[in-house]
Amino acid sequence: MAEFDLIERIRRRAASRDDVLLGIGDDAALLRVPPERHLVVATDTLNAGVHFPGDSAPADIGWKALAVNLSDLAAMGAEPAWCTLSLSLPQADPAWLDGFLDGFLALAERHRVALVGGDTTRGPLSACVTVHGLAEAGRALRRDRARAGDDVWVSGTLGDAAAALAQWRQGGAADPVLRARLDRPTPRLALGRALAGLAHAAIDVSDGLLADLGHVCRASGVGAELDLDALPASPALRGAFAGDALRGLQASGGDDYELCFTAPSAAIDAVQRAAEASGTPVSWIGRIVAGSGVAVFDAEGARWTPPRAGYEHFGAA
Amino acid sequence: MAEFDLIERIRRRAASRDDVLLGIGDDAALLRVPPERHLVVATDTLNAGVHFPGDSAPADIGWKALAVNLSDLAAMGAEPAWCTLSLSLPQADPAWLDGFLDGFLALAERHRVALVGGDTTRGPLSACVTVHGLAEAGRALRRDRARAGDDVWVSGTLGDAAAALAQWRQGGAADPVLRARLDRPTPRLALGRALAGLAHAAIDVSDGLLADLGHVCRASGVGAELDLDALPASPALRGAFAGDALRGLQASGGDDYELCFTAPSAAIDAVQRAAEASGTPVSWIGRIVAGSGVAVFDAEGARWTPPRAGYEHFGAA
Repeated sequence: MAEFDLIERIRRRAASRDDVLLGIGDDAALLRVPPERHLVVATDTLNAGVHFPGDSAPADIGWKALAVNLSDLAAMGAEPAWCTLSLSLPQADPAWLDGFLDGFLALAERHRVALVGGDTTRGPLSACVTVHGLAEAGRALRRDRARAGDDVWVSGTLGDAAAALAQWRQGGAADPVLRARLDRPTPRLALGRALAGLAHAAIDVSDGLLADLGHVCRASGVGAELDLDALPASPALRGAFAGDALRGLQASGGDDYELCFTAPSAAIDAVQRAAEASGTPVSWIGRIVAGSGVAVFDAEGARWTPPRAGYEHFGAA
Repeated sequence: MAEFDLIERIRRRAASRDDVLLGIGDDAALLRVPPERHLVVATDTLNAGVHFPGDSAPADIGWKALAVNLSDLAAMGAEPAWCTLSLSLPQADPAWLDGFLDGFLALAERHRVALVGGDTTRGPLSACVTVHGLAEAGRALRRDRARAGDDVWVSGTLGDAAAALAQWRQGGAADPVLRARLDRPTPRLALGRALAGLAHAAIDVSDGLLADLGHVCRASGVGAELDLDALPASPALRGAFAGDALRGLQASGGDDYELCFTAPSAAIDAVQRAAEASGTPVSWIGRIVAGSGVAVFDAEGARWTPPRAGYEHFGAA
C-alpha cells in the first residue's frame, strides 16, 4: 500500500465543515476564519514508547494524539475547528491505520473538528497533530494573568493517568478505570469555553499539577499555596494507592489533561455555574499569593514536598 | 538539559510579528487573521534516514524542515505568516538544536515567518512543521483547476536533488551544487504569489514531476503531454548525468520543490512577467489535454517512459 492510498483511506473517512474551503488532497488546506475571532494553534507529538505504552491499542493512540492537542485549546478557552495529522509508520498497515482513525475520528466528531490535511511517511511510530481553534478576541485564557488573591481550581481528579502508568511499569495489569484515563483523556473543552472571560489564567495538566501551576506562576509573576487535602482523587486511585504515593501521583503525575485555572475569589459562584453548565466537576485547591513558587501545605499546616519529581521527557524522572 | 530549557532556547531566538498576539510559551499561540484573507495550512514531517541522509548538517535539516512546508504554501499562491515546530530528539543536545535553529530561522526570517509554538520531545530524530499562510479569498492556487488547452510550466530546473541522492547512495561525494539543492531547497514563494489569480492549477514537485503533475491531472480530470527536451536541467546535472539517466532524474526525481503549474495559453506573456517580477526562471514543458494521464514525447514524437518510478515513502522505488 502506497502513501497515496493511505492518504486516500484517511480522506474518505474525514468529515468536513462549512468553513473548510479545501480539505485533504491539495498542497494545503484552505480555511475561513470568522471576523472578530482569533486563531488559536497548538501542536503536540506522541512517540511510541515515550507518550504511550507499546501495548496501546491503535484506537487509543489515535484518540490520545488528538485529545492532548484539544486539551491545549481547552486551556485557552477556544472552540476547536480543524486539525492536521502527520503520521509516521514503520510499515503501511491499513488495519492499524483504520484502528488509529477509529479513535482519532471518534473524538474529532464529538467536538466537530475537521481533519483537513497532513502527511503519512515511513518512520518510527509517531503522530504529530496540529489543532486550530477559534477564540473571541480578548477572551482567550492565558498563563500569564494569574493575580495574587485568585483562587486556584482544578477540574476532575488528579493522578489517575500516572497511577496507570506506574502499575503498567511495575508489570501488573493496570486498573481498567485508571488505564482508561491514561489512554483516553478527556479534553475539557466545554469547561474551558465557559471559563473564557471569567478565569484569569489557565493551563492543562500534562506535566503534573505542581509543574504546570509552576508555569502559570512563573508567567504571571506570582506564587501559589495549595491545600494538600483539597486535591481531588478518584475512587479508583484511592483504591489503589494511599499516603504519600497517592499524594505524589496527584501533585506530580502527568497526563491528566485536567484544567488548572485561577479566578478572582468574587467569582466563586460564577465558576461553580460554569462547571455545572459544562458538566465538569471542579475543586478549589488553593490560592495565588504574592511571591513565587508553588507551596503545598498539609492539614496541620506543614509544608509538604512530593516524593518524586514531575515527569519530563528529557528529565531525570 | 530539560524540555523546558530546550523550549526556552527556541523561544529566545524566535522572531515575532505584529499579528502574533501570543507566541511560544502558552498552551497555544493566538494569532490575528486579517479579514478578506483565507487561512492556508500545510504540515509535513522529516524523519532521519527517510527524508534526509544521516550525515546531513543540523542547519540543513532545519532549513529543509521549513522549506518543504513553505513550498506547499508557494504552490497555493499563499503568503506565509506563522509556523509551529514539533521536534523529536534522541537526546537533548543544545549544540545540535542551535545548529538546527540556524537553518530553520534563517529561512523563516527570509520570508517573515514567525515560529509561534510547538514542542520538543524524546524520540527518534524527526521534525514536524505546520505552516500557516494567508491567501486572498478566491485567488488561491489549487490542483483541480487545470483545463485542456492550458500550457504546463515548471520553475527552475529538475532532477538536481534526486541526482545528489543518487550520488550519495552510490557512496561517492555528491557534487556540492547538486547536494545544496537536496539539502537547501528554495520554496518558490514569490513566484507562487505572482501566479495567484493567473495560473489555473499548481503543485510543488516533491514526489517527482510525472507523479505530481499526475496528481494535478487526476484532480482536474484532464491529461498532459510533455516535451521531453523542454524539461529544464541545470549545468551541474548535465555535467554529472546524461541520456536516460538524466531524463529519468528530471521526470521522476523528487525533492526539487519547484512549482509545476498550468495557465491558459493566452497568458504566456503574463506568466513570463510573473517569472521576471519574482526573479524565478520558468520553462514551458507541455500542454494539458482532454483525457487522463501524463505522456512524455521525445524530439521524434515517440512516447518516452522513464527508467524508474517516482519516489514514494511506502512504495517500491
